[in-house]
Amino acid sequence: MKKTALIMAGGKGERFWPRSRKNMPKQFLCLTGDGKTMIQQTVERILPVVSMEDIYIATNKDYKELVRQQLPELPEENILCEPVGRNTAPCIGLGAIHIQKKYEDAIMYVLPSDHLIKYKGMYVNILEDAAKVAEDGENLVTIGITPTAPEVGYGYIKFAPDKSLGRAFEVERFVEKPDLATAKKYVESEEYLWNSGMFAWKVSTILHSMEEHLPAIYAGLMRIKESFGTEDEKDVLNGVFENFPSESIDYGVMEKEEGIFVIPGTFGWDDVGSWLAVERLRPVNDSGNIVDGNAMTVDVKNCIISGQEKLIAAVGLRDLIIVDTEDATLICAKESAADIKKIVENLKICNRDKYL
Amino acid sequence: MKKTALIMAGGKGERFWPRSRKNMPKQFLCLTGDGKTMIQQTVERILPVVSMEDIYIATNKDYKELVRQQLPELPEENILCEPVGRNTAPCIGLGAIHIQKKYEDAIMYVLPSDHLIKYKGMYVNILEDAAKVAEDGENLVTIGITPTAPEVGYGYIKFAPDKSLGRAFEVERFVEKPDLATAKKYVESEEYLWNSGMFAWKVSTILHSMEEHLPAIYAGLMRIKESFGTEDEKDVLNGVFENFPSESIDYGVMEKEEGIFVIPGTFGWDDVGSWLAVERLRPVNDSGNIVDGNAMTVDVKNCIISGQEKLIAAVGLRDLIIVDTEDATLICAKESAADIKKIVENLKICNRDKYL
Repeated sequence: MKKTALIMAGGKGERFWPRSRKNMPKQFLCLTGDGKTMIQQTVERILPVVSMEDIYIATNKDYKELVRQQLPELPEENILCEPVGRNTAPCIGLGAIHIQKKYEDAIMYVLPSDHLIKYKGMYVNILEDAAKVAEDGENLVTIGITPTAPEVGYGYIKFAPDKSLGRAFEVERFVEKPDLATAKKYVESEEYLWNSGMFAWKVSTILHSMEEHLPAIYAGLMRIKESFGTEDEKDVLNGVFENFPSESIDYGVMEKEEGIFVIPGTFGWDDVGSWLAVERLRPVNDSGNIVDGNAMTVDVKNCIISGQEKLIAAVGLRDLIIVDTEDATLICAKESAADIKKIVENLKICNRDKYL
Repeated sequence: MKKTALIMAGGKGERFWPRSRKNMPKQFLCLTGDGKTMIQQTVERILPVVSMEDIYIATNKDYKELVRQQLPELPEENILCEPVGRNTAPCIGLGAIHIQKKYEDAIMYVLPSDHLIKYKGMYVNILEDAAKVAEDGENLVTIGITPTAPEVGYGYIKFAPDKSLGRAFEVERFVEKPDLATAKKYVESEEYLWNSGMFAWKVSTILHSMEEHLPAIYAGLMRIKESFGTEDEKDVLNGVFENFPSESIDYGVMEKEEGIFVIPGTFGWDDVGSWLAVERLRPVNDSGNIVDGNAMTVDVKNCIISGQEKLIAAVGLRDLIIVDTEDATLICAKESAADIKKIVENLKICNRDKYL
């Protein structure tokens, strides 16, 4: 069966401020030091499984030009612009009807644009396995990540260790981000995986599930589909999306559906959730530092310095994140990385939009 | 007797890098937040004692334009440019012969251009007292500072508590920068003052002392003086200075001379020796921070932030100095402030002159 992919690239990525901005979110940044942006890496990674012409990027119109620039080989009609963000269910539905327009049915991968994968061969292997499970009936397949710590920032998937289909396990339930005590229990039980937001299914299967569990969204998607190729196409898209509720695919479909499978993704996954992630992705030097750009250090240890042309002179520092951009410089204690969003919030409150 | 002053303004002030630069050293910076530069404050401070036309500024030719800009009311001929820096003895000698040209003899104050004084009335009072002692015979008078801590960065002056002349005490000896144990002994003895580099003497007295103790420099000065008004004036100045040894007035004259007096300067002195001094000179806010320029802070305490237009976003920081300039940003732990000079040294070694 034909394999296609929808890469979701509408995120704002505020946690990488000031490098990430409203007009340059994380998926369009190069954070790994290899000269490739997150979305470029995402596309490159799936090319052994999905042809370029079958890759769709869902994003908002502000990022269309960035997608074109960073993915010049992608057919322009494969860039699907959501008029407004309405969470993942409408976004995935939009991808599904576009794929359905091209192929009567097909395998559809749904992938985030801003995660990193270490073992790319293994990743391809797992994507292929996921397609097999998705094709074997009406299965919705998700890729789960074996927890390395009781993280409270991810949703979890409880699977049935005794109910397997190939490398996949039947999902018992999806659970929202837990508190720390609960997360610890999950990890100890060895029956939970992190929800990575990567999926595989047939277009027919996911649309069928949406028809059942999200009938209003399904109806809207059908109106959009009917308008394809007509002069009303754009107006219908705008009008329908405007009226969509904000609905995630997890809550709207996965948590309610039967016959869901999870494949443990053993390929070295990282969601690159904050500046701290850079340390996991990049080699540190002898002093424990990661230094980009024009920097000079004296007695600096375990710091992340992301500069540009301007000279960053660092003296006697420990465990800091320093990010210099054209119009803003961030200096942040590593242990306070979660507070970077407070700066972003304050900038919003103060209407200092030029820094967002 | 006529009172004149020589303000020494040739210093490079590397400790305030990156705000201070080779072409903009500390004496030309405004570090107190009142809109006046150090040299402007120095001149303003002595105007109750010395008329503007009797104030001389010794500097090097690169700073002549800065002096003119910052002190537009100073007669241009009072800006004395040393062809090359040869420490304080030749500099003071050059000032002395210029004053001698104008007045047969006069009181000559020698003052640094980059110190701060808190009690300006008391300062004037002490300058006047120093002049009286200087006039009363052939006395060389220096102003000493009562130590507040066993500083190892200053030279010390041992005085004789039982040998006073007005508010002045006879100096027993000058000592170089001590180690910490010695500095502690000095402070405990209550017989030592810091050497502030401020002096008062008659022009005739200091030239006489130089003739005795620094005969080669004295001879050179006389050649320069003879050339005044001739077409060779500039060449003689250049040639003589080039051949001068580098000699400080402390080592060359004060340590060897008899009849030296010190007046304790009780006027709230600060040599503004590093960024840390800014905390003594400027009010801190409720979080213990001193913030200039465009900054946004979240959980930042006891930091000095000196920015400009660019946004400095500081998160979770303690005890840092952050200085942002057009082409360089310094981030330095307060306890490592002395290492800022290592950055300057490294820049020199790497020939990155544009940052100096």
